[in-house]
Amino acid sequence: MSQFNFRHCPIELSMEQLGRKWAITIIRDLFNGKTRFKEFLESNPELSAKMLSTRLKELQQHDIVDKKVVRTTPLLIEYGLTEKGRALGNVLYSLALFSIRFHPDEVFDEPPDNIEEDLRSVFFPPK
Amino acid sequence: MSQFNFRHCPIELSMEQLGRKWAITIIRDLFNGKTRFKEFLESNPELSAKMLSTRLKELQQHDIVDKKVVRTTPLLIEYGLTEKGRALGNVLYSLALFSIRFHPDEVFDEPPDNIEEDLRSVFFPPK
Repeated sequence: MSQFNFRHCPIELSMEQLGRKWAITIIRDLFNGKTRFKEFLESNPELSAKMLSTRLKELQQHDIVDKKVVRTTPLLIEYGLTEKGRALGNVLYSLALFSIRFHPDEVFDEPPDNIEEDLRSVFFPPK
Repeated sequence: MSQFNFRHCPIELSMEQLGRKWAITIIRDLFNGKTRFKEFLESNPELSAKMLSTRLKELQQHDIVDKKVVRTTPLLIEYGLTEKGRALGNVLYSLALFSIRFHPDEVFDEPPDNIEEDLRSVFFPPK
Protein backbone atom coordinates (compact mmCIF):
# COMPACT_ATOMS: atom_id res chain seq x y z
CA MET A 1 0.00 0.00 0.00
CA SER A 2 2.74 2.33 -1.12
CA GLN A 3 0.28 5.20 -1.62
CA PHE A 4 -0.05 5.45 2.16
CA ASN A 5 3.62 5.87 2.98
CA PHE A 6 3.36 3.42 5.84
CA ARG A 7 6.53 3.00 7.83
CA HIS A 8 5.30 -0.53 8.61
CA CYS A 9 2.29 -2.03 6.83
CA PRO A 10 -0.48 -2.24 9.47
CA ILE A 11 -1.77 -5.53 8.06
CA GLU A 12 1.65 -7.12 8.37
CA LEU A 13 2.06 -5.70 11.85
CA SER A 14 -1.26 -7.24 12.86
CA MET A 15 -0.29 -10.57 11.33
CA GLU A 16 3.00 -10.52 13.24
CA GLN A 17 0.92 -10.42 16.42
CA LEU A 18 -1.90 -12.74 15.34
CA GLY A 19 -0.61 -14.88 12.50
CA ARG A 20 1.00 -17.72 14.38
CA LYS A 21 -0.77 -21.02 14.53
CA TRP A 22 -3.43 -21.17 17.28
CA ALA A 23 -3.27 -17.48 18.20
CA ILE A 24 -6.65 -16.62 16.64
CA THR A 25 -8.18 -19.82 18.05
CA ILE A 26 -7.08 -18.91 21.59
CA ILE A 27 -8.48 -15.39 21.16
CA ARG A 28 -11.72 -16.92 19.90
CA ASP A 29 -11.93 -19.04 23.06
CA LEU A 30 -11.37 -15.94 25.20
CA PHE A 31 -14.24 -14.17 23.42
CA ASN A 32 -16.29 -17.26 24.22
CA GLY A 33 -15.68 -16.80 27.92
CA LYS A 34 -12.96 -19.38 28.47
CA THR A 35 -10.43 -18.21 31.04
CA ARG A 36 -8.46 -21.24 32.20
CA PHE A 37 -5.42 -22.91 30.70
CA LYS A 38 -7.18 -26.25 30.91
CA GLU A 39 -10.25 -24.97 29.11
CA PHE A 40 -8.21 -23.89 26.09
CA LEU A 41 -6.68 -27.35 25.92
CA GLU A 42 -10.06 -29.04 26.26
CA SER A 43 -11.62 -27.03 23.46
CA ASN A 44 -8.67 -27.73 21.14
CA PRO A 45 -7.60 -31.37 21.31
CA GLU A 46 -4.72 -30.82 18.88
CA LEU A 47 -3.24 -27.91 20.85
CA SER A 48 -0.35 -28.95 23.10
CA ALA A 49 0.25 -27.43 26.54
CA LYS A 50 3.66 -26.24 25.41
CA MET A 51 2.29 -24.47 22.34
CA LEU A 52 -0.55 -22.95 24.37
CA SER A 53 1.89 -21.66 26.96
CA THR A 54 4.10 -20.10 24.27
CA ARG A 55 1.16 -18.43 22.52
CA LEU A 56 -0.35 -17.09 25.74
CA LYS A 57 2.99 -15.52 26.65
CA GLU A 58 3.32 -13.92 23.20
CA LEU A 59 -0.23 -12.60 23.34
CA GLN A 60 0.51 -11.13 26.77
CA GLN A 61 3.66 -9.47 25.40
CA HIS A 62 1.51 -7.91 22.68
CA ASP A 63 -0.94 -6.69 25.35
CA ILE A 64 -3.76 -8.71 23.78
CA VAL A 65 -4.20 -11.14 26.69
CA ASP A 66 -3.86 -10.53 30.40
CA LYS A 67 -3.28 -13.04 33.17
CA LYS A 68 -4.63 -12.74 36.71
CA VAL A 69 -3.73 -14.79 39.74
CA VAL A 70 -7.19 -15.10 41.24
CA ARG A 71 -6.11 -17.27 44.19
CA THR A 72 -2.76 -18.59 45.34
CA THR A 73 -3.69 -21.74 47.33
CA PRO A 74 -4.72 -23.68 45.44
CA LEU A 75 -3.42 -21.67 42.53
CA LEU A 76 -6.10 -20.27 40.24
CA ILE A 77 -5.05 -18.32 37.18
CA GLU A 78 -7.44 -16.66 34.77
CA TYR A 79 -6.68 -15.34 31.32
CA GLY A 80 -8.68 -12.58 29.70
CA LEU A 81 -8.72 -10.12 26.83
CA THR A 82 -7.28 -6.65 27.33
CA GLU A 83 -8.93 -3.61 25.76
CA LYS A 84 -6.65 -4.17 22.76
CA GLY A 85 -7.65 -7.84 22.65
CA ARG A 86 -11.36 -6.99 22.74
CA ALA A 87 -10.81 -4.69 19.77
CA LEU A 88 -10.13 -7.84 17.73
CA GLY A 89 -13.87 -8.61 17.74
CA ASN A 90 -14.05 -7.04 14.28
CA VAL A 91 -11.34 -9.29 12.91
CA LEU A 92 -12.83 -12.48 14.34
CA TYR A 93 -16.35 -11.56 13.34
CA SER A 94 -15.19 -10.93 9.75
CA LEU A 95 -13.33 -14.25 9.69
CA ALA A 96 -16.43 -16.08 10.94
CA LEU A 97 -18.78 -14.42 8.44
CA PHE A 98 -16.43 -15.23 5.58
CA SER A 99 -16.73 -19.00 6.08
CA ILE A 100 -20.40 -18.80 6.97
CA ARG A 101 -21.02 -17.04 3.66
CA PHE A 102 -18.80 -19.17 1.43
CA HIS A 103 -18.84 -22.54 3.17
CA PRO A 104 -22.21 -22.85 4.92
CA ASP A 105 -22.36 -26.61 4.30
CA GLU A 106 -19.05 -27.18 6.05
CA VAL A 107 -19.91 -24.90 8.95
CA PHE A 108 -23.46 -26.03 9.71
CA ASP A 109 -25.47 -29.18 9.76
CA GLU A 110 -28.46 -26.88 9.54
CA PRO A 111 -27.96 -23.12 9.14
CA PRO A 112 -29.64 -21.41 12.09
CA ASP A 113 -31.60 -18.19 12.01
CA ASN A 114 -29.98 -14.99 13.24
CA ILE A 115 -26.47 -16.37 13.21
CA GLU A 116 -24.95 -12.99 12.35
CA GLU A 117 -26.72 -11.32 15.24
CA ASP A 118 -25.77 -14.11 17.66
CA LEU A 119 -22.13 -13.86 16.60
CA ARG A 120 -22.22 -10.09 17.10
CA SER A 121 -23.16 -10.69 20.74
CA VAL A 122 -20.00 -12.80 21.11
CA PHE A 123 -17.57 -10.49 19.39
CA PHE A 124 -19.08 -7.12 20.30
CA PRO A 125 -20.31 -7.75 23.83
CA PRO A 126 -21.91 -4.89 25.77
CA LYS A 127 -19.35 -3.34 28.11
CA MET B 1 -18.43 -21.52 20.20
CA SER B 2 -20.26 -24.59 21.35
CA GLN B 3 -23.54 -22.67 21.69
CA PHE B 4 -23.73 -22.49 17.90
CA ASN B 5 -23.43 -26.21 17.18
CA PHE B 6 -20.98 -25.58 14.40
CA ARG B 7 -19.91 -28.66 12.52
CA HIS B 8 -16.65 -26.83 11.81
CA CYS B 9 -15.79 -23.55 13.53
CA PRO B 10 -16.01 -20.87 10.80
CA ILE B 11 -13.06 -18.95 12.26
CA GLU B 12 -10.85 -22.03 12.11
CA LEU B 13 -12.07 -22.80 8.61
CA SER B 14 -11.13 -19.27 7.52
CA MET B 15 -7.72 -19.57 9.16
CA GLU B 16 -7.11 -22.87 7.37
CA GLN B 17 -7.49 -20.93 4.12
CA LEU B 18 -5.75 -17.70 5.17
CA GLY B 19 -3.51 -18.51 8.11
CA ARG B 20 -0.36 -19.64 6.36
CA LYS B 21 2.58 -17.28 6.25
CA TRP B 22 2.32 -14.71 3.41
CA ALA B 23 -1.25 -15.57 2.40
CA ILE B 24 -2.75 -12.37 3.82
CA THR B 25 0.14 -10.32 2.45
CA ILE B 26 -0.43 -11.67 -1.06
CA ILE B 27 -4.15 -10.93 -0.77
CA ARG B 28 -3.28 -7.41 0.42
CA ASP B 29 -1.14 -6.92 -2.69
CA LEU B 30 -4.01 -8.09 -4.90
CA PHE B 31 -6.33 -5.53 -3.27
CA ASN B 32 -3.63 -2.99 -4.05
CA GLY B 33 -3.87 -3.78 -7.74
CA LYS B 34 -0.83 -5.98 -8.12
CA THR B 35 -1.43 -8.75 -10.65
CA ARG B 36 1.96 -10.15 -11.67
CA PHE B 37 4.09 -12.81 -10.01
CA LYS B 38 7.07 -10.46 -10.19
CA GLU B 39 5.18 -7.62 -8.52
CA PHE B 40 4.40 -9.75 -5.47
CA LEU B 41 8.08 -10.62 -5.16
CA GLU B 42 9.13 -6.99 -5.57
CA SER B 43 6.80 -5.74 -2.88
CA ASN B 44 7.93 -8.46 -0.43
CA PRO B 45 11.72 -8.86 -0.48
CA GLU B 46 11.61 -11.72 2.02
CA LEU B 47 9.09 -13.76 0.02
CA SER B 48 10.71 -16.46 -2.10
CA ALA B 49 9.44 -17.43 -5.55
CA LYS B 50 8.86 -20.96 -4.34
CA MET B 51 6.76 -19.87 -1.36
CA LEU B 52 4.82 -17.41 -3.53
CA SER B 53 4.09 -20.13 -6.08
CA THR B 54 2.87 -22.49 -3.36
CA ARG B 55 0.63 -19.87 -1.74
CA LEU B 56 -0.86 -18.73 -5.05
CA LYS B 57 -1.75 -22.33 -5.87
CA GLU B 58 -3.37 -22.83 -2.47
CA LEU B 59 -5.32 -19.58 -2.77
CA GLN B 60 -6.51 -20.68 -6.23
CA GLN B 61 -7.60 -24.03 -4.79
CA HIS B 62 -9.63 -22.13 -2.18
CA ASP B 63 -11.20 -20.03 -4.96
CA ILE B 64 -9.77 -16.85 -3.44
CA VAL B 65 -7.38 -16.05 -6.28
CA ASP B 66 -7.77 -16.61 -10.00
CA LYS B 67 -5.13 -16.79 -12.69
CA LYS B 68 -5.55 -15.61 -16.25
CA VAL B 69 -3.29 -16.20 -19.20
CA VAL B 70 -3.55 -12.77 -20.82
CA ARG B 71 -1.13 -13.53 -23.66
CA THR B 72 0.82 -16.60 -24.67
CA THR B 73 3.82 -15.15 -26.60
CA PRO B 74 5.47 -13.76 -24.71
CA LEU B 75 3.62 -15.31 -21.80
CA LEU B 76 1.69 -12.87 -19.65
CA ILE B 77 -0.14 -14.19 -16.61
CA GLU B 78 -2.29 -12.06 -14.31
CA TYR B 79 -3.54 -12.96 -10.87
CA GLY B 80 -6.67 -11.46 -9.40
CA LEU B 81 -9.20 -11.81 -6.59
CA THR B 82 -12.32 -13.87 -7.14
CA GLU B 83 -15.66 -12.77 -5.71
CA LYS B 84 -14.79 -14.81 -2.63
CA GLY B 85 -11.38 -13.16 -2.43
CA ARG B 86 -12.88 -9.67 -2.68
CA ALA B 87 -15.14 -10.54 0.25
CA LEU B 88 -11.99 -10.59 2.38
CA GLY B 89 -11.91 -6.78 2.28
CA ASN B 90 -13.61 -6.79 5.68
CA VAL B 91 -10.95 -9.00 7.20
CA LEU B 92 -8.02 -6.99 5.82
CA TYR B 93 -9.62 -3.66 6.67
CA SER B 94 -10.13 -4.83 10.28
CA LEU B 95 -6.53 -6.04 10.49
CA ALA B 96 -5.26 -2.69 9.20
CA LEU B 97 -7.40 -0.62 11.56
CA PHE B 98 -6.27 -2.71 14.53
CA SER B 99 -2.60 -1.74 14.12
CA ILE B 100 -3.45 1.82 13.11
CA ARG B 101 -5.39 2.18 16.35
CA PHE B 102 -2.96 0.46 18.69
CA HIS B 103 0.41 1.07 17.04
CA PRO B 104 0.15 4.39 15.20
CA ASP B 105 3.79 5.24 15.92
CA GLU B 106 5.02 2.05 14.31
CA VAL B 107 2.71 2.40 11.31
CA PHE B 108 3.20 6.07 10.47
CA ASP B 109 5.94 8.62 10.42
CA GLU B 110 3.13 11.11 10.46
CA PRO B 111 -0.49 9.95 10.80
CA PRO B 112 -2.39 11.21 7.76
CA ASP B 113 -5.93 12.56 7.68
CA ASN B 114 -8.74 10.34 6.41
CA ILE B 115 -6.73 7.15 6.59
CA GLU B 116 -9.81 5.07 7.41
CA GLU B 117 -11.68 6.42 4.41
CA ASP B 118 -8.68 5.93 2.11
CA LEU B 119 -8.29 2.34 3.29
CA ARG B 120 -11.99 1.73 2.67
CA SER B 121 -11.46 2.67 -0.97
CA VAL B 122 -8.79 -0.07 -1.19
CA PHE B 123 -10.69 -2.85 0.56
CA PHE B 124 -14.24 -2.00 -0.49
CA PRO B 125 -13.74 -0.77 -4.05
CA PRO B 126 -16.77 0.22 -6.11
CA LYS B 127 -17.76 -2.66 -8.38
